[in-house]
Amino acid sequence: MAKRFEKVLTDSSTNYYLESWQIDSSSFPEFKGRQWRITKFVLRGGRQHGVDIVEIDNGQMTVTVVPTRGMNILKACTNDAVLGWSNAVREVVHPAYIQPESRGGLGWLEGFNEMMSRCGLESTGLPGTDLIVDNQGNKKTVTLPLHGRISNSPASRLWVEVELEEPCRLTVAGEVPEGRMFGPSYLLRTAVSTVPGTTEFTISDEVQNLSAVPQEMEILYHCNYGPPLLGEGARVVVPYRKVSARDEHTLQDIEKWDTYGPPEPGFVEHCYFLTLHGDADGRTAVALVSPEEELAASIRFSLEPLPAFTIWKNTAAEADGYVTGLEPGSDYPNSRQFEREKGRVVQLEAGESYRAELSLALVRGKPEVEALCDEIAALGEGKESEVCERVDPELSPM
Amino acid sequence: MAKRFEKVLTDSSTNYYLESWQIDSSSFPEFKGRQWRITKFVLRGGRQHGVDIVEIDNGQMTVTVVPTRGMNILKACTNDAVLGWSNAVREVVHPAYIQPESRGGLGWLEGFNEMMSRCGLESTGLPGTDLIVDNQGNKKTVTLPLHGRISNSPASRLWVEVELEEPCRLTVAGEVPEGRMFGPSYLLRTAVSTVPGTTEFTISDEVQNLSAVPQEMEILYHCNYGPPLLGEGARVVVPYRKVSARDEHTLQDIEKWDTYGPPEPGFVEHCYFLTLHGDADGRTAVALVSPEEELAASIRFSLEPLPAFTIWKNTAAEADGYVTGLEPGSDYPNSRQFEREKGRVVQLEAGESYRAELSLALVRGKPEVEALCDEIAALGEGKESEVCERVDPELSPM
Amino acid sequence: MAKRFEKVLTDSSTNYYLESWQIDSSSFPEFKGRQWRITKFVLRGGRQHGVDIVEIDNGQMTVTVVPTRGMNILKACTNDAVLGWSNAVREVVHPAYIQPESRGGLGWLEGFNEMMSRCGLESTGLPGTDLIVDNQGNKKTVTLPLHGRISNSPASRLWVEVELEEPCRLTVAGEVPEGRMFGPSYLLRTAVSTVPGTTEFTISDEVQNLSAVPQEMEILYHCNYGPPLLGEGARVVVPYRKVSARDEHTLQDIEKWDTYGPPEPGFVEHCYFLTLHGDADGRTAVALVSPEEELAASIRFSLEPLPAFTIWKNTAAEADGYVTGLEPGSDYPNSRQFEREKGRVVQLEAGESYRAELSLALVRGKPEVEALCDEIAALGEGKESEVCERVDPELSPM
Repeated sequence: MAKRFEKVLTDSSTNYYLESWQIDSSSFPEFKGRQWRITKFVLRGGRQHGVDIVEIDNGQMTVTVVPTRGMNILKACTNDAVLGWSNAVREVVHPAYIQPESRGGLGWLEGFNEMMSRCGLESTGLPGTDLIVDNQGNKKTVTLPLHGRISNSPASRLWVEVELEEPCRLTVAGEVPEGRMFGPSYLLRTAVSTVPGTTEFTISDEVQNLSAVPQEMEILYHCNYGPPLLGEGARVVVPYRKVSARDEHTLQDIEKWDTYGPPEPGFVEHCYFLTLHGDADGRTAVALVSPEEELAASIRFSLEPLPAFTIWKNTAAEADGYVTGLEPGSDYPNSRQFEREKGRVVQLEAGESYRAELSLALVRGKPEVEALCDEIAALGEGKESEVCERVDPELSPM
Repeated sequence: MAKRFEKVLTDSSTNYYLESWQIDSSSFPEFKGRQWRITKFVLRGGRQHGVDIVEIDNGQMTVTVVPTRGMNILKACTNDAVLGWSNAVREVVHPAYIQPESRGGLGWLEGFNEMMSRCGLESTGLPGTDLIVDNQGNKKTVTLPLHGRISNSPASRLWVEVELEEPCRLTVAGEVPEGRMFGPSYLLRTAVSTVPGTTEFTISDEVQNLSAVPQEMEILYHCNYGPPLLGEGARVVVPYRKVSARDEHTLQDIEKWDTYGPPEPGFVEHCYFLTLHGDADGRTAVALVSPEEELAASIRFSLEPLPAFTIWKNTAAEADGYVTGLEPGSDYPNSRQFEREKGRVVQLEAGESYRAELSLALVRGKPEVEALCDEIAALGEGKESEVCERVDPELSPM
Repeated sequence: MAKRFEKVLTDSSTNYYLESWQIDSSSFPEFKGRQWRITKFVLRGGRQHGVDIVEIDNGQMTVTVVPTRGMNILKACTNDAVLGWSNAVREVVHPAYIQPESRGGLGWLEGFNEMMSRCGLESTGLPGTDLIVDNQGNKKTVTLPLHGRISNSPASRLWVEVELEEPCRLTVAGEVPEGRMFGPSYLLRTAVSTVPGTTEFTISDEVQNLSAVPQEMEILYHCNYGPPLLGEGARVVVPYRKVSARDEHTLQDIEKWDTYGPPEPGFVEHCYFLTLHGDADGRTAVALVSPEEELAASIRFSLEPLPAFTIWKNTAAEADGYVTGLEPGSDYPNSRQFEREKGRVVQLEAGESYRAELSLALVRGKPEVEALCDEIAALGEGKESEVCERVDPELSPM
């Protein structure tokens, strides 16, 4: 195992918490030429007061992790581009201000502005009623709110790891519990890591069912991109097996499913449910390519834990969120009741863990973008692919 | 433009926040004879832990602004009187403890104890269901909670301005966003200002629709007074065009609409909906006159942005809130659905701003109170006025 | 009156708050041989960030009080045993993270892990709709959430008292308001006290109706025990007059009502409603006796304020809460509507106070445990006792 430096920043079990902390490559002079810095600080003012932030600056890209919001990724910036987006929510909202069940289960939207918002773990999709088992063993109808609760759950443990051997991977790791008496109890262990000098970072997740009884679980990685990646003429490049419009509204423009228009005030979202091809090991890649084809954002992941891929196209005005979401998931962001009916909800035995890993990158330069597109094309080469001409009742509640 | 001193106290966009700060007239020796002080501090303990307060002491009156609660005014005190009131809510409650949709949409009442609580901006009135447009462009029924969300929204930006020329106006200004993805996005810019040596302060508001699509907006200034202004025999003096009881219960005592009784345990509120006369420029004034007619609280405002005036008479026991509300509003505090039906909801185009300004004063001395009453009487002189003998279905849902 | 030392730690009315503070017996050298310490500190990290804790270490037992959560008792520990339990909720959850009405009124369960969680004061039982009177004097249907709001209400005043005479009783006292405009307004005054060198502590409560009109009130002390008190073969010892199964599911095992099985994944709770016998003064005692009969947890209280006794048996897997609750209450934890129908809800006149006191102890050693069991047996000796063979519609909604 690699030699490494470790530093705990938060551990609620021992009541340990560092408000601010910093480390950088100058502390490790044996690794010449690598420049990086990891900074922990707390946001102040407005709805963001008290929100913990960890920035990982790997010398090329700064990845901003939000431990207070379930270890979501706020944004990833290089000196010439940003992976992320903006909308009416301009602060990094503290969970104390979020009531997920408000506005008919849409309360999550009051804090939604991150580059990667993790949806789950009890449910990931649209708000809807579902049956749970209450303390008396009776079925009880409750509202499962939009995109679940994990994004508004703070990490109970947070630490930093630095590999002291090449490639000197930098890691910010956290544990986020989502649990209650008489209900599911999950522990998300997540690590966000990057290698100095790259424009890539990896999210490695393990979700464990801490309960002694089986539990359902859903997870979806809501990865969101605005300009400069998104723009008129941008396109999504995916090794698709099947593309289905979520609804009739989306179906009307089905032929434009993989391209984007300019910001358009009042645009109503289009949403596509896909299955993808992968390589022999079940690994796949998707990309958003900028209009000039000089930039791309890619996501690499395995299909086995993440078989469902959703594209969210919301080319509204920039003030209202000009954004697209590329969303690998354990299933589709419909109500849990519908996803269960279709057999897509993950079942975790007592103590069992689910694992998923995503690598997100910014690719710069026309040749590099072209190579990425070629790689993705190769994943689907010679395999069947279909763009559905109707809304598929297996994927969309009617 | 006047020379002025400016100091930012909070700016969440730059993660800037001053926990405590103070400035007073001794810093500006060129203005002899003016004594004033502005103090920023944070409340501690109980439900008020973490609430920001700014006190503007202008030498005669201290106005207490609550940036954490949407720049509401907690109270305004002189050495012999207070504009404000008390009830079961004794702390300045942090929004983290408020769930507006709880108790059937009445959660707002758990933090209600301010002299001026701003209601709005998505809705101002009684809780009720209404249709919103969700992310898929579908109509969705949601609960709009009592008096909206702006009172439980913290300022993202807070600053102080001091005019360095006569009259040396002192200003505490803030920006309070109310927005979400897939919903209205407003920015309230508000300034609370006062001139040293006076017993008056002004609230100057601008509400901008930050969205690229039109939005509805409602606003109401819930200005609340208890003793010593309110007491048995106190009366409200307004240049009314028409006074309507909100409901049959209020109608029973309609002839006493402008006078107040003593505290009465179990008193059920009376509520009146009014239209007012103004001067040639559309400016008007209202007053609450104390029983001895030695004190009055006045509010001056323009009728164009604030055409609807509500009187709330709640002469319950002091422990339960012995209070009256004088409430200039863009419309009446009914459900938004009803107000829309009656054509009273403000419509803001993309980027458009709504502006309103109120000046609130304490008037001391019988001659001064008499002069104020004469001034108000003159506004209505020779114009029609009516106290309705029935509940008006244009103003009250049946 | 005894000489005593007093120290205020929090007083929100004067904006006074001590983040950390400590005092111990070395400050009072006149009391030789007594060793004790009282420590105030703040929890950090995760959902517990900002939660105030006061630990009373009396030399034999450390009692952990949670002012931020309504002065609940987290646990009481000696060097060889703990009164308390564990489940999926592993942090001491700040009320800002609790939305009592979420999950169909079960939001309370996201913070439930204390040894003594006080339920009340507006309601104590299962979530259910009930009618309240709104501001307009109209009946309004609202959801009263599980176990009420007092456990998620922070103390507005907190102080420490040390008796400077034998027995040198140590007290941590607090005031917890539960109130709102247009609704009940209660003030809970509570004192947790213990005598150095003992393994006992006392909770002395006064609940005052601060309103000028009568209010209903319910209170229940949810006292919860896991290992080492609870284990296979543990038993509850109570001077019962009548034991009734809450439901048919519980009834199936009615003959085992006073004994406990081992942890059993997926076990669905059993719940019993009891009336108890007391001594001539109406005082009674109950105990949980460990499997080896070498440990017992006792609760002593008066039947007049606490006539209803509930046993909650939840021998689920330890990860999911292997626990039993011994719950003295003003009534049973059914919906308030049902308890009102049965005439069991407390009615408090304007200004009236309700008082209750519980002494909780850890008893160690077989002879001591036997003596305790004999004492409890004596309370019921020669008096009628009955284990019901059906579910009693007077106690359980059908």
